[in-house]
Amino acid sequence: MPHLIVEYSANLSGFPEAQMLAELNQTVTASPEIPDEIELKSRCVAHASYAVGTQTTGRAFVHAQLRLLSGRSPEAKLDFSQRIVDVLRRLTPQPEGVLVQLSVEIVDMDRPSYIKTRL
Amino acid sequence: MPHLIVEYSANLSGFPEAQMLAELNQTVTASPEIPDEIELKSRCVAHASYAVGTQTTGRAFVHAQLRLLSGRSPEAKLDFSQRIVDVLRRLTPQPEGVLVQLSVEIVDMDRPSYIKTRL
Amino acid sequence: MPHLIVEYSANLSGFPEAQMLAELNQTVTASPEIPDEIELKSRCVAHASYAVGTQTTGRAFVHAQLRLLSGRSPEAKLDFSQRIVDVLRRLTPQPEGVLVQLSVEIVDMDRPSYIKTRL
Repeated sequence: MPHLIVEYSANLSGFPEAQMLAELNQTVTASPEIPDEIELKSRCVAHASYAVGTQTTGRAFVHAQLRLLSGRSPEAKLDFSQRIVDVLRRLTPQPEGVLVQLSVEIVDMDRPSYIKTRL
Repeated sequence: MPHLIVEYSANLSGFPEAQMLAELNQTVTASPEIPDEIELKSRCVAHASYAVGTQTTGRAFVHAQLRLLSGRSPEAKLDFSQRIVDVLRRLTPQPEGVLVQLSVEIVDMDRPSYIKTRL
Repeated sequence: MPHLIVEYSANLSGFPEAQMLAELNQTVTASPEIPDEIELKSRCVAHASYAVGTQTTGRAFVHAQLRLLSGRSPEAKLDFSQRIVDVLRRLTPQPEGVLVQLSVEIVDMDRPSYIKTRL
């Protein structure tokens, strides 16, 4: 059931989208909290239209959001964040003269109203 | 005030975006919880960059997220999910040899800080 | 740490993305709640595939979502919404014969599991 959304500012040219998603999915599904790897649906979005603070150049960001059914412990959620930020740190390009911010957010999804099925 | 976001993996070629949004809006606004149909703002996003679990092919997903002002009952929220998944199931293409996951999530939006207006 | 996401329906042609983000970042970071302007990561997304209610033409929307670490007072959150909607109202184009809905949503992000770092 988890959903992972990775967004990044498009000035991070060469951002390795496919590798990023592959390695993120590897580490996230390796958590004991995820019983079946197939449940993790991940996507990557490059933003050509972005702004970081009030300065127009020299800044970039990557933000990953993991959406999980509610009920995980604070420790389990923090563990997910750490798994994710480790991959972001390793694979995000660092263009010369650009300050790159990385962030990871865990979101609880409302469990009673969540529906999942397969065609 | 509700917002509906439909995301799908781009390997679902032929995904009927306009029809999907039209039929979703029809059924969601038919709920007694929605006093005015014009309030529902829906959008559809195809993801060319995605990964489902740790396998690189043969998998697809559609995820719908409905964002509502907080205060709905659990029953009302589940009813929205059911209305939505019925449409997803009916209209999502099923490519040969592809396992397609469908999911629906209801999100409570913070009511006191929400602002809406019209130009 | 805040994230700002501005979405709009693509029938708002001439939507001034760069100016919108610049002025939003200016006013949001001017809040005493934001200690460092560089922390605000904003992006703008045009939706070519959208539907407002059950009518197919003559309607448009702009939605801004500000994601903040949890713990802000209701007053502080409402103040952010007002800062944002003022800019939306001022800069959103109003095409002839199109009803344009504006909305602003504040989201609390789970603080204990949030990670941010810089490369």
